[in-house]
Amino acid sequence: MLYALQLLGVTAFAASGAIVALRKGMDLIGVAVLSIVTAVGGGTIRDVLLDRPVFWIREPAYLTVGLASAAIMVIWMRFWRPPQQALGVADAIGLGLFAIGGAQIARQLGSAPAIVILMGTITGVAGGIIRDTLSAEIPTVFRRGQLYASAAITGTTAYVILVWAGTSEPIAAYISMAAVVAIRFAAVFFGIELPAPRILSEKKPD
Amino acid sequence: MLYALQLLGVTAFAASGAIVALRKGMDLIGVAVLSIVTAVGGGTIRDVLLDRPVFWIREPAYLTVGLASAAIMVIWMRFWRPPQQALGVADAIGLGLFAIGGAQIARQLGSAPAIVILMGTITGVAGGIIRDTLSAEIPTVFRRGQLYASAAITGTTAYVILVWAGTSEPIAAYISMAAVVAIRFAAVFFGIELPAPRILSEKKPD
Amino acid sequence: MLYALQLLGVTAFAASGAIVALRKGMDLIGVAVLSIVTAVGGGTIRDVLLDRPVFWIREPAYLTVGLASAAIMVIWMRFWRPPQQALGVADAIGLGLFAIGGAQIARQLGSAPAIVILMGTITGVAGGIIRDTLSAEIPTVFRRGQLYASAAITGTTAYVILVWAGTSEPIAAYISMAAVVAIRFAAVFFGIELPAPRILSEKKPD
Repeated sequence: MLYALQLLGVTAFAASGAIVALRKGMDLIGVAVLSIVTAVGGGTIRDVLLDRPVFWIREPAYLTVGLASAAIMVIWMRFWRPPQQALGVADAIGLGLFAIGGAQIARQLGSAPAIVILMGTITGVAGGIIRDTLSAEIPTVFRRGQLYASAAITGTTAYVILVWAGTSEPIAAYISMAAVVAIRFAAVFFGIELPAPRILSEKKPD
Repeated sequence: MLYALQLLGVTAFAASGAIVALRKGMDLIGVAVLSIVTAVGGGTIRDVLLDRPVFWIREPAYLTVGLASAAIMVIWMRFWRPPQQALGVADAIGLGLFAIGGAQIARQLGSAPAIVILMGTITGVAGGIIRDTLSAEIPTVFRRGQLYASAAITGTTAYVILVWAGTSEPIAAYISMAAVVAIRFAAVFFGIELPAPRILSEKKPD
Repeated sequence: MLYALQLLGVTAFAASGAIVALRKGMDLIGVAVLSIVTAVGGGTIRDVLLDRPVFWIREPAYLTVGLASAAIMVIWMRFWRPPQQALGVADAIGLGLFAIGGAQIARQLGSAPAIVILMGTITGVAGGIIRDTLSAEIPTVFRRGQLYASAAITGTTAYVILVWAGTSEPIAAYISMAAVVAIRFAAVFFGIELPAPRILSEKKPD
């Protein structure tokens, strides 16, 4: 069950990488590379930081699934507009799965609560950060109105609190995954956003 | 003592990340993420390259201090201009602390002198490189008139030479930290800069 | 022999980093840093992902050679245009060497075929990706008409198939290195390029 959900997350993130690459006019290999990097980037950084074997080296099926997802988007976008609604749903589910999955791994290694929250957040958002950085754009996670990192941080924090409060681990995981998805939906469909702190206006120093 | 100095370095670098994020109009979570990445990025890359446990996973207090520093900058910049002088001083001290601290760690692992110098330099400058790259800018370290990497390289080289010459290790560390700070001050306050090599003018190839 | 070829690859990639840095007007330290990052970036990511000791920490001669190559380019470009033809040849050879060398290392560790291909590709192309990202540009590998990643993927795939088919390992390595070089030459000299998938035209969503 969890494995199938992880593959769904990879599918969603690979599709988002493919869409960005196609819009930038990259060739087929560029599309494939950006899709894979987006899909596995977050989990890779998590595994390197925790000094675990990188997940897709042990289980290359993730790469196959990511490439298949990219291939489907290449064909799809030749004829239709990107399926924004469906992708938004899949992306929110992927974020929830990756974030809570990353938190679970850190918790199993006995990490401190702050590290569990941070590893989950990194797993959820780093792939998208790498995708946007490689496309020479400021990452979505740093733009307003997305509640992207916020959803991951809130969900992983809920996970840590629920487990600490004695909730059975799988129940805590499912509740907090649902929280991530709900917060993302709230941001996308209702336009909720965090405030950007106002700063004293200043002339640019250069 | 050294631990307190490291925390001071984290404070300075987190503040620099917060200022960049605030100027870019990022929301609160974006400010927090960019601050933390700037503060711990260099040490994280050092630990991954040396295959050591990542320092903030073992000691999450670094994250707390970094976030507190970012929070203070958010409030400060609402009402006042960024305290450039104070931050310049703190940033120079942070660079010295991180660079020499990174060199000390590499030396304790028995690395070759070139690796000790490089690990110190990476620890000092990588956080700022990540900060600028995520903001879609050419990193400060690659721009002129900062002597940023130069200060780190000179200081860590001085450290290696002093220890090799028989100076007691703590004395060597303090002297070379002071050298980093002095070089940065020289760059910032007296406008000293390295030459950019002149090149034969050419028409852009595309 | 292989060691000498690896050093040639480092020389070529360091020179390409130096040229980019010089054109951007970076100072001497910036040129040195970008050259080294370009030359060792791919192999570093490979070693971190495979949880091996980083190659230039064990053998700092790579750094010395990379810096020497950058120094030569600094002097060269003061007086002459960059030697495009010679560099194109050296870069193609470097790509072949790094890609197949990375594939060999992954294979010796018993990785799955997909991982062998991917590790080789990462070793070949990641240095250039880091170089371009730090220069705030979309990496060459994502632009059309280079067959850069394509050459690495084709060569490492050939390597995997040849070894699987019973070819002696060194022969398989030399043949697949030659394939990488040949494909790059075909792209550069004959203007062969992969198609960029056409997409349904759309108004920008923002």
